[in-house]
Amino acid sequence: MGSKAIVLVSGGMDSAVALAEARAAGCACHALSFDYGQRHRHELAAARRVAEAGGAIDQRVVVLDLRAVGGSALTSDVLVPKDRPHAAIGAGVPVTYVPARNTIFLAVALGLAEVVGARDLYVGVNALDYSGYPDCRPEFLRAFEALARVATVAGAEHGAEFRVRAPLLTLTKADIVRRGRALGVDFALTHTCYDPRVDAGRVLACGRCDACRLRLKGFAEAGERDPIPYAPGFSP
Amino acid sequence: MGSKAIVLVSGGMDSAVALAEARAAGCACHALSFDYGQRHRHELAAARRVAEAGGAIDQRVVVLDLRAVGGSALTSDVLVPKDRPHAAIGAGVPVTYVPARNTIFLAVALGLAEVVGARDLYVGVNALDYSGYPDCRPEFLRAFEALARVATVAGAEHGAEFRVRAPLLTLTKADIVRRGRALGVDFALTHTCYDPRVDAGRVLACGRCDACRLRLKGFAEAGERDPIPYAPGFSP
Repeated sequence: MGSKAIVLVSGGMDSAVALAEARAAGCACHALSFDYGQRHRHELAAARRVAEAGGAIDQRVVVLDLRAVGGSALTSDVLVPKDRPHAAIGAGVPVTYVPARNTIFLAVALGLAEVVGARDLYVGVNALDYSGYPDCRPEFLRAFEALARVATVAGAEHGAEFRVRAPLLTLTKADIVRRGRALGVDFALTHTCYDPRVDAGRVLACGRCDACRLRLKGFAEAGERDPIPYAPGFSP
Repeated sequence: MGSKAIVLVSGGMDSAVALAEARAAGCACHALSFDYGQRHRHELAAARRVAEAGGAIDQRVVVLDLRAVGGSALTSDVLVPKDRPHAAIGAGVPVTYVPARNTIFLAVALGLAEVVGARDLYVGVNALDYSGYPDCRPEFLRAFEALARVATVAGAEHGAEFRVRAPLLTLTKADIVRRGRALGVDFALTHTCYDPRVDAGRVLACGRCDACRLRLKGFAEAGERDPIPYAPGFSP
């Protein structure tokens, strides 16, 4: 077993693949998830399943209620857009953008890294499918590494170098599906939908929000069938 | 009234003076406080008093429970040290250090700045009295500004420059007492102690933890009397 890593595990397919990549690189993985006032609690249940199935040695759930900050459809009362064409999904910053979310999550990951002695921070961010998020770009990740060097005792006093590992950064969603399959990720455990419903105890993805549409497009382009259930009447 | 600012208000004397500085600079101030699993809830009550008395136009309290991360006497079960000589307080990183705390708090402040359109982030950090905290140094603040440029929509798409303002950075605690007096800060509203007790509804500072000892030394050196009550039998 190699070095220790903190892996941000949201319960989505990207973070499940990021965890698998960290394990494949030989890291002992501490999963870190956030209870941040999401509309859908199913995401946290998925994060627990993904961390456990993905071989994390432990999982911490940090309560971080960003609703007092607002500004996003994921944490306030803005409507989640539906049925948008793929060209619109990739253009500009979506209303589901949580301001500075990756900065906040990575900052907490950095704190945990100091506590457990980890140097690698794995994140499932992706610059291609979500080009509108400024904090999903390589220059953001490098700037965070520069900050980590001076923000920590390990960096400032012992010269430790923290690395933000974003193995999915330049992959398409189809690439992520293929890479996950190759690494043995069980996508049935993951949750993606921004607006799910529950029917007879089963969580059904809407199939129509931006996140569902990107996910379904990825599976279709990879020639795979998405194993999670969708709302009745919805046909991809 | 000039530009908008986010001011991190903990309820301590430093953040009260930082808020007064932001107001003196003409800023419309949004106070931001954290409910982060502190041992002492009195700190949050003080933060509310300080924000209101200091003229903030609103205050947000973000729930951020860092106990799952641990690693500090302020958020876990490590004992708060008492009666340490001042030479020891200034040397090395104290056990009350919360890993990456300023990084985390500034990241949330940055998110709020995006939402309300603020560009200045005011923090009461101080490099002299607490030389042991890596995230209280100028190089940390500059690295955070560099990160903010690339982490936000305002920075990445509209060229906005965020500034971390740390007006107390090079002041001694005595300087901070004097500056606060000059700006009309009511130090009776502030809370500093790491280990307070409540007696007949009054919050009494212990006078013996590192934070109390620095505070009392500052008032003594400024030739002022600290207006908050201390535990019976304790004499500064």
